[in-house]
Amino acid sequence: MTRIHPFDSVKDFEIRLASKLVKDAYPASANVHFVQIDRVDPPKKDMIKYLDAEKVGQTPQAIPRILYTYYYTNTLTFNKALVNVTAGHIITKTQLPHGTVGPYLPDDMMEWEKLCTSHPIVKAEIEKLKLPPGYTVRNDPWIYATDDPNERRPLVQFFMYVLAGNGHTESNHYSLPLKFSPVFEAFTNKFVRIDYLPGGFDETVTPTMPWQEVPCVEYHPDLNNEANMRDVKPLLISQPEGPSFSVEGSKVKWQGWEFRVATSAREGFAIYDASFKGRQVFYRISLSEMTVPYGDPRAPYHRKQAFDLGDCGFGVNGNHLSLGCDCLGVIKYMDGTGIHANGEPFVIPNTVCMHEQDNGLLYKHVNYRTNNAVVARRREFIVQTIATVANYEYIINVKFITDGSINIETRATGILSTMPIDENVKVPWGTVVGPNVMAAYHQHILSFRIDPSIDGHKNSVVYDDVVKLPKDKLNPYGVGFVTERKFVDRAGHIDQSPFTNRSYKIINENKINPISKTPVGYKVVIPARQMILADDDSFNVKRAKFATEQVWVTKYRDHELFAAGEFTNQSQRDEGLGTWANGVDPVRNEDLVVWATVGFTHIPRVEDFPVMPVEIHNIELVPFNFYDKNPALDIPQANNTFNKSVLSDSNTAEKACCKTKI
Amino acid sequence: MTRIHPFDSVKDFEIRLASKLVKDAYPASANVHFVQIDRVDPPKKDMIKYLDAEKVGQTPQAIPRILYTYYYTNTLTFNKALVNVTAGHIITKTQLPHGTVGPYLPDDMMEWEKLCTSHPIVKAEIEKLKLPPGYTVRNDPWIYATDDPNERRPLVQFFMYVLAGNGHTESNHYSLPLKFSPVFEAFTNKFVRIDYLPGGFDETVTPTMPWQEVPCVEYHPDLNNEANMRDVKPLLISQPEGPSFSVEGSKVKWQGWEFRVATSAREGFAIYDASFKGRQVFYRISLSEMTVPYGDPRAPYHRKQAFDLGDCGFGVNGNHLSLGCDCLGVIKYMDGTGIHANGEPFVIPNTVCMHEQDNGLLYKHVNYRTNNAVVARRREFIVQTIATVANYEYIINVKFITDGSINIETRATGILSTMPIDENVKVPWGTVVGPNVMAAYHQHILSFRIDPSIDGHKNSVVYDDVVKLPKDKLNPYGVGFVTERKFVDRAGHIDQSPFTNRSYKIINENKINPISKTPVGYKVVIPARQMILADDDSFNVKRAKFATEQVWVTKYRDHELFAAGEFTNQSQRDEGLGTWANGVDPVRNEDLVVWATVGFTHIPRVEDFPVMPVEIHNIELVPFNFYDKNPALDIPQANNTFNKSVLSDSNTAEKACCKTKI
Repeated sequence: MTRIHPFDSVKDFEIRLASKLVKDAYPASANVHFVQIDRVDPPKKDMIKYLDAEKVGQTPQAIPRILYTYYYTNTLTFNKALVNVTAGHIITKTQLPHGTVGPYLPDDMMEWEKLCTSHPIVKAEIEKLKLPPGYTVRNDPWIYATDDPNERRPLVQFFMYVLAGNGHTESNHYSLPLKFSPVFEAFTNKFVRIDYLPGGFDETVTPTMPWQEVPCVEYHPDLNNEANMRDVKPLLISQPEGPSFSVEGSKVKWQGWEFRVATSAREGFAIYDASFKGRQVFYRISLSEMTVPYGDPRAPYHRKQAFDLGDCGFGVNGNHLSLGCDCLGVIKYMDGTGIHANGEPFVIPNTVCMHEQDNGLLYKHVNYRTNNAVVARRREFIVQTIATVANYEYIINVKFITDGSINIETRATGILSTMPIDENVKVPWGTVVGPNVMAAYHQHILSFRIDPSIDGHKNSVVYDDVVKLPKDKLNPYGVGFVTERKFVDRAGHIDQSPFTNRSYKIINENKINPISKTPVGYKVVIPARQMILADDDSFNVKRAKFATEQVWVTKYRDHELFAAGEFTNQSQRDEGLGTWANGVDPVRNEDLVVWATVGFTHIPRVEDFPVMPVEIHNIELVPFNFYDKNPALDIPQANNTFNKSVLSDSNTAEKACCKTKI
Repeated sequence: MTRIHPFDSVKDFEIRLASKLVKDAYPASANVHFVQIDRVDPPKKDMIKYLDAEKVGQTPQAIPRILYTYYYTNTLTFNKALVNVTAGHIITKTQLPHGTVGPYLPDDMMEWEKLCTSHPIVKAEIEKLKLPPGYTVRNDPWIYATDDPNERRPLVQFFMYVLAGNGHTESNHYSLPLKFSPVFEAFTNKFVRIDYLPGGFDETVTPTMPWQEVPCVEYHPDLNNEANMRDVKPLLISQPEGPSFSVEGSKVKWQGWEFRVATSAREGFAIYDASFKGRQVFYRISLSEMTVPYGDPRAPYHRKQAFDLGDCGFGVNGNHLSLGCDCLGVIKYMDGTGIHANGEPFVIPNTVCMHEQDNGLLYKHVNYRTNNAVVARRREFIVQTIATVANYEYIINVKFITDGSINIETRATGILSTMPIDENVKVPWGTVVGPNVMAAYHQHILSFRIDPSIDGHKNSVVYDDVVKLPKDKLNPYGVGFVTERKFVDRAGHIDQSPFTNRSYKIINENKINPISKTPVGYKVVIPARQMILADDDSFNVKRAKFATEQVWVTKYRDHELFAAGEFTNQSQRDEGLGTWANGVDPVRNEDLVVWATVGFTHIPRVEDFPVMPVEIHNIELVPFNFYDKNPALDIPQANNTFNKSVLSDSNTAEKACCKTKI
C-alpha cells in the first residue's frame, strides 16, 4: 500500500477505526450517533519538517493521522472525540457545553423530512389545504438559527410546499410555498409548534385555508413547457495527446504548479502546499465559511441565516459530478467521503473534478513596424466542486493560471428560497418571481481562508493606497501620484477602499526581489462589496463577525480554520474571526493567515426563477514583484498547427472533421 | 450587389468617392492629406423607421450613406468634410479652429519615426552615446498632449531607445530607454527641441553621455533565453456540426441573439440593434474613448496622457487576428478598413473575430431527494478586436450569453511604457522592472457607450441602494433590509457606492413585467474603481471629464459618440461628456445614453515585464425583471453524448481519439 500523505483526505478504514474506538468507549445504551467524522490537519510545525524532508528526497518522519468525530450520546448529548488512527487510540473525548449544536447529518435531515410530513399535527394542517387530487406536500428541513439565548435545544424548521399533481419527482415545489412551518426538536423528533407565515405586506398571519391553485413554474426539461429548444451545436474539447497535468494520489502537477488537493466533509476541498516554479506560495487555501442571512424581517424569516459549511457541511453535500455535464474536456475526478450515523463511511463519487481550459489570451504584443506578433494563450487548471445546500447550488472553482496567479471563483446557482405571497401584493424586501411566490432579498457572504507561504512561512500583510502628490515644484501640473504603504502589525481587519485603489499584498520582508529591490509578494485582489446588513447587535452579526469586513489577518494557529468558529448551528456568537482578530497578536513577519470575505447582496430577479443563471464572483492571488520577470515566457507561442482552429466559412462538418484530424 | 445596410461598415468605394470629391474641391497645390475617413452613423429617427420596416418584412426607405473625412490642406490647415456618397456630393466642408489637431494617421507616424532618427540634431545626440557595434537607436513617436494653452501646433514627442546589437528586428527596445526625447512639429517635420529625461529620484537631467551597457530583457521567443519551454499539450476546440451562429454581411444570429457588427476606424467595432428572443435591448454598444494618464510628475512625462481612440484610432491600429492564435475554435473574421494619406483605402484583414466558447455552468440544481440534476452549460459568443497602441495592446471582447446578458471585457496586455532610471535608484511613482528601466504608475480609463433600447427607445436610469430597515415592531431583531430607488432626471453622473450595493438599471417605465409588476430593465454591473487621480484643474482632468466618474447618463443626440469629444489630440478640454452631462437635459423616459467608465490604476509589477500578462476588467449588462422567467430554460441539458468528454485516467492518445470521434 502506498504510504498515506499527511495531506491526503481521510480514508475509509480510518473512519471505521475512529468510529469503532468511539463506540467502544460507550455502553451500547448510549446509542452513539455520529454526525461528522474527518481528519484533522497535521500540526504545521511538524508538517514543515515533513515537506522540507520530502523536497530534498529524504523519507520524512511520519505524522500520526488524527480524526475528529462529532457524535451524540443518549440522544441529545453532543460530544467531540479526537482519535489517533495511526496508533489506534482516543486522544480526547469531550462532552460539549449544553446548547452546542453540531452540524446536521444529511441522513438525519432526510429522515426528519419524512417524519415532519407524517406527524399527526402536520397532517391535520395539510388536510386543511384540501389539495386537488394528485397534489401532495413536500418540505425542506431548514437550519433553525437563533433568536433566543435561552433556546438550547437542537431544532429544525420545516418550510412546506405543494408538490404539483403531475406525478413527477422533479416538479418545482419551491414555486408553491405554503403558509405554515412546523418546528421540531432534532433527534428526539418532538413536535414543538407551527409557525404561520405572512402572505401580505406585513407580519399578519392567518390560519391555514384551502389552497388556491396557481401555476407551478417548472425548471425540469420534462415539465418546463419549452416547446422550441435552442439549436446548440456541439463544441468539443479534446486533448488528443492527453492532458498537461498529472495526478498521483492527492498530488497534482501542472505547468510549473505543484500542490495537493484533499476533499473534506466541511470545506469540500482544500489546496495544500502550492508552489509555482519551485517556490512556495500558499500553504493552504480553502473555503472557510459561508453565511446566508435573509432581509425579510417577519417571523420566522428573521431567523433565516444559514452557515453552509458549519451547519451542514459543504463536502458532505457535494454533488456527484459527471462527465460532459459539470466539466468539459479531459477530466480527473476525486471522491469525497460521507458517513452514516453509525460511523460507517460511504463514497461521495466524483465530488471534485479537475481539468484544463483555455481562457483567451495570456499576453500579446505586436511590433507595429514589422507586424510580428508574440502571443500566448491563457491556459487554466480548474479544481471544481459543487455543493447543493437544499435549494441553492454553489460552485467553487480554484483556478491555477500559467502566469503564477490563482483565481478563486464562486458561482451561485440553484433555486431561490421562496416564500408565499398573496396575489397583487408587493413587499419592499423581496421580488415576486412567480404566481404567489416571493423571493426575499438576502446575502451570500463567503470567507476564503488563505494561508500563505510566500517564499517561506514568515510573511507580512501590507495595503497600498494610490494617492495624489501635492502640487509643488516637482509636480507643477498636478498630475503626479504615488503609493502609500501601511503594514498590518496586529491581528485584525483592513477596511476596503476602492477609491484609493487600495490593494492588499502578502509579502516576505526577508526576501527582496532582485529587480524591483522590494520585498517579494502576492497581491490579493478582492472587489469592494457591501458586507452584512443586519444591525451590529443582531444575532446575525454576533454569529458572523467575519461577514462584517472583507479582509482579515490573524496569526497562524493550528485548528483555526473556520471563520465563524467550529460550531455554527444555532450558535450565538462568532468563535472564529470574532475571537482571533483580537488586535493583540503580532502578525508582521510572522506565520499569518489572510481571510477574504466575498459578499454579494442578492436582490432576486424574475430571471433567477425557477432556476438561477450563475452569479460569478472572484478573488485573485497575483504575484507582485515575486518573480524577476513575467514567469510565462516559457509558454510555447500560440499557433494553428497546435490549435487547429478553422474558419466558420469552410466549416461544413466534413471539412472541419478533416481539418481537425490529428 | 447586395444592398448596403445603413449599419454596415464603410465600403472601399465609398472612401474612394469621398476622398475624390474632397480632393476635387481643392486646387492640387493644397495637397489634401487625409488622416481619417469613415462613415457617420445614420440619424436615429430615420433608422428606427428603417428597422421597424425591416422587422415587418417591408423594404425600408434607403438612408443616404454619409462619410466624414478629416484632412489637412496646405500642410497645417485641418479640415473636416461630410460627404454624401449615395448622392455623390459634399455636404459641408469646414476648416477647424486653429489649434484643433486631428487623429494622427498610422502611415504618418511611421514616416515621422524614420525622420526623427535621421535628423542631424538627433543623429548628433545619438553619436554621443558611443553605442557598441551593432547597437542602434529606435524611437516610438508619442502623442504630445498638452501643458500650454498657447501651444497650437501639432507636435510629436519621440521616446528613444537602444536597439540591442543582436540584429533581431523583435529585440525589446522598451528595455533600453534613453535619456533624451526630441520634439518635432508634425507634418512640417520641423525640429522643435530635445527634452532630457531624468534618471534619478528627482527632475534633474544631465547631458547625453556614453551609454552604459545593461542586459536587455527580451520577450521574443528567439531572444528570451527560456531554455526549458513548458510542455503544454494541445487542447482542441472543434465544432464538427458547424457553429451555432450565422453571419450574413454585418448581421449576426446566435442563440436567440440578433445584432449587427460594424468595424470602424476610431472605435474598432460597434454592436448595433441587439435583440434577444425578439425583444430590443441595445441600439448601440461601443468603446467610446480611453485615456492613459501617467503619474510621473517630471517633465516631459507630465504630458504623458494618450487618448487611444481620439488621438490615433483604435480600429486603424487593429491587429490582423490569426487562426489558432487570437481565437480558438470555429472562427468568423471581419475586416476593417484603413486609409492612406491620399485617401486610398486598404484592408485591415481579420480585425474582428467572432466565435463561440464554453464557460462552465450556466445553471444547475440537484434535487437532493432523488439526486436528479438539471444542468446547462454557459455558452458565449465573443466579438473580439485587439488594438496595438505603440507599446500596449488592448483586447476588447463583447460577449453575448445565452441567458440574455452581455459581458464587455477589456484585457490589457503588451509592453509597459518605460523610462530610464539610474542604477540603485527608486522612485515613488514607478517600479523598476529591469536593469536601469522603470515603468511609471499610470491609469487606463475606458469609456463604454451603451445606447439602450430596452423594449423601445424611451428609457430611464435608476439606481438602487440596499439599506437597513429601522429596528421597530416589524423588524424587532434588526435583520431586515430593503432597496431604495432613485431616478436620474437630468443628464449627469451617478456616484459609485459599493457599500450600499448600489446597482444601476436602465428601465422602461412604459413596460411592466407581468410577474414582478415592476418596469422591465437591464442592470449595468460595473465594479467601483479609482477614477482619474490628477488635480481637478490639471489638463489631464480638463481634457477627460469622462474619467472623473464611472456612470454617466445623457440625452441621446446623433453624433454624440465620443466621451472626450471629437478631437482629443492636444485638446485642452473635454468636449464630450464634459459638455453633454449638463445637468439640464431631461433623461427620464427619454431616449438616453449610458456611459460606463472602467478604470484601473496600473502599478506595474516586475512580472508585467517584458510583456504583461492580461489584466481583465468587465462590465455586465444583465436582464433585470425583463423576461418573465429564466430565459435559458430552452437550452438543451448538458450530457456527454453531446459533449464527449473523457476521463484523464483513460486518456492515452488512442483512447481519447477513439472516444472523441464523432
